[in-house]
Amino acid sequence: MGLVVQKYGGSSVADADRIKAVAQRIVATRKAGNDVCVVVSAMGDTTDDLLDLAAQVAPLPPARELDMLLTSGERISMALLAMAIANLGMEAWSFTGSQAGVITDSRHGKAQIIDVTPGRIRDALDKGRITIVAGFQGVAQDTKDVTTLGRGGSDTTAVALAAALGAEVCEIYTDVDGVFTADPRIVTTARQIPKLSYEEMLEMASSGAKILHLRCVEYARRFSLPIHVRSSFSTKPGTWILDIPPEEQMEAPIISGVAHERGEAKITVVGVPDKPGEAAQIFTVVADAGINIDMIVQNVSSVATGRTDITFTLPSTELTNAMGALTKAQDQIGFESLQSDDQIGKVSLVGAGMRTHPGVTAKFLSALADAGINVEMISTSQIRISVVVREHELPAAVAALHSAFELDDTGGEATVYGGTGR
Amino acid sequence: MGLVVQKYGGSSVADADRIKAVAQRIVATRKAGNDVCVVVSAMGDTTDDLLDLAAQVAPLPPARELDMLLTSGERISMALLAMAIANLGMEAWSFTGSQAGVITDSRHGKAQIIDVTPGRIRDALDKGRITIVAGFQGVAQDTKDVTTLGRGGSDTTAVALAAALGAEVCEIYTDVDGVFTADPRIVTTARQIPKLSYEEMLEMASSGAKILHLRCVEYARRFSLPIHVRSSFSTKPGTWILDIPPEEQMEAPIISGVAHERGEAKITVVGVPDKPGEAAQIFTVVADAGINIDMIVQNVSSVATGRTDITFTLPSTELTNAMGALTKAQDQIGFESLQSDDQIGKVSLVGAGMRTHPGVTAKFLSALADAGINVEMISTSQIRISVVVREHELPAAVAALHSAFELDDTGGEATVYGGTGR
Repeated sequence: MGLVVQKYGGSSVADADRIKAVAQRIVATRKAGNDVCVVVSAMGDTTDDLLDLAAQVAPLPPARELDMLLTSGERISMALLAMAIANLGMEAWSFTGSQAGVITDSRHGKAQIIDVTPGRIRDALDKGRITIVAGFQGVAQDTKDVTTLGRGGSDTTAVALAAALGAEVCEIYTDVDGVFTADPRIVTTARQIPKLSYEEMLEMASSGAKILHLRCVEYARRFSLPIHVRSSFSTKPGTWILDIPPEEQMEAPIISGVAHERGEAKITVVGVPDKPGEAAQIFTVVADAGINIDMIVQNVSSVATGRTDITFTLPSTELTNAMGALTKAQDQIGFESLQSDDQIGKVSLVGAGMRTHPGVTAKFLSALADAGINVEMISTSQIRISVVVREHELPAAVAALHSAFELDDTGGEATVYGGTGR
Repeated sequence: MGLVVQKYGGSSVADADRIKAVAQRIVATRKAGNDVCVVVSAMGDTTDDLLDLAAQVAPLPPARELDMLLTSGERISMALLAMAIANLGMEAWSFTGSQAGVITDSRHGKAQIIDVTPGRIRDALDKGRITIVAGFQGVAQDTKDVTTLGRGGSDTTAVALAAALGAEVCEIYTDVDGVFTADPRIVTTARQIPKLSYEEMLEMASSGAKILHLRCVEYARRFSLPIHVRSSFSTKPGTWILDIPPEEQMEAPIISGVAHERGEAKITVVGVPDKPGEAAQIFTVVADAGINIDMIVQNVSSVATGRTDITFTLPSTELTNAMGALTKAQDQIGFESLQSDDQIGKVSLVGAGMRTHPGVTAKFLSALADAGINVEMISTSQIRISVVVREHELPAAVAALHSAFELDDTGGEATVYGGTGR
């Protein structure tokens, strides 16, 4: 008898009927002989409704109180889910993040998990109860105040609890069948990927695949905890994310999939004096404004002027903020001018097989060139190639790469194995 | 600098605008030099909405989970209130019942407060913060589970916290100006009562005055904590409930007010063998069914038959339950038959002055007789007379008594003092 941790997102518990359907699935898992610990998000639009209420009483609500407010969302969904399970004749107890032992630091709205001490969950499981835990929330170690984990929080709660409880698997239920070789809304022939290594999933997530948050994948990798991403609307197997030993990686697909990200912007800092410490100054200014940057390209310096240009990408929502911070620091840094562009997008190819298969970059760039798409920036890792293109060309770029790397679902053999030279 | 505990009910925080108005009042109290601890109920219809949701997923939800669900209501209102106060430039921190140290037994849905250990509230007050506490909820001493206090819970939270913190006063804010000499919807000339003893308020509350729950008045009396019932829609003084020393009671009004209660029913147990222990058997059966009874009348026994009739009143919602329990026990108790009637109401006259002024009962019964109202049962305490009448005659009975005891607001001198022989 193993322990399964299941996480259901907001769309999976959006209304009473969906909650009852989820309860059926949980009871089936329990009856199959597993101990079950469930992590649940707030119902559908609850969080947005609460944020609306907050905006009505205060334009800048204190973070501590915002956390107190938002955590009521999971409290509602978890209690309702426990009731629905009880109605099917099984005992289910719900627990807040605090009760479940999710200990965090005290950075309200973006707390990090420090420790998980699931003594009460373990007790309840040992008594045969199904346990339901509020996702996204914890309790601050020092202040004992209620905290929220920020984006990707419920997935992270699930993975952290699964690791602390020694679960066999953390099942992440969502509204799609798993991770796909590309966004099926753009590439109709995209295939579901049966298996991915943590590293591949990390690259996919950081390249725009929204299905799992980076943070939860990193947590799972640290504890070698298998994640199974699957649909709460079907019983089909989804995508497994796990350690793939090197010998198996030889047999793994060269390319796992194509990810893309809209909503990117780039800033070019023109005429930066080409001397040590200049780039550091620029990115210190940007970091101090609380902005995460993504790709960076530095031009070869002009011998004539002794100056260079530095271009970087960032979320377009942060563009105004970053331009303001850099403009203020212009005299101090000594650059000539700033240029910005928020009509860009990023497309990435991810695959563990890249490590051992040369020629992927050449094929990647040829495919885009054949489709008449201009590449503005390039960035690579051992298992990923990313380029910046015009935002309106993003769908065409995704489709061209998906087809060039033979990821299209042709109705026959789905998996492209390595070692074939392709 | 004193400490004031303020309690705001659901209608006082029904929407964002009402919450902002309440925040203004709290800030004004703080700026007047007081420490302020606020106890708040769930917004308007939140609790009903949550109960609807629960009914959609489970017809008989487990009490533990129902408590988990319902406590989200105060969590929302208290966080929003803290935000609204912060928006006015004052620091406010919200606390759940558990965080505020409201320790209860583990009877979910109707928990009793065992202890109040408001260390975190005291700390926050000492740091100059306004503290906001969720009403109606606590944490079970043994299981550490979240509990709710049942009816009148938020008022009781406020009084219990005020007692534990040594507050000068517990202000209960509501949507009327205080306690009235009769329900103003029935008696348009009803006057607001400036001051009542705990005993009078207890009799008023147990006689149908809905403004304060019995339980919170009892708690306040035990700790001699003054309660000030007032409107959250005005700044007028309301009704004070406090210890009135005997010498002041001499000067107090003979009669405080007229209370009434609809939704009553009566059961007559016919032909009960007139021997010791029979009445005890009947009321044991009723108590075992979880029913609180109110008035009891036992007829003089018939010499011919050696049998008597026993009549008692109870909430009409409990009538079916009680009739069932008694029918089942008929053979064991040995009564002849049962009669029931759910078209009755109770009207009561309350006043500490009754103790020392004879003739009140006679005047009471004459007033009803003059109005042509038949009295079906009578029950008295030292400071209260209650009678059962037909439910449809209740408004006329209230008006007749209010007028006979000169409680009507004539626009002039409002208070009828004792010692005048009236």
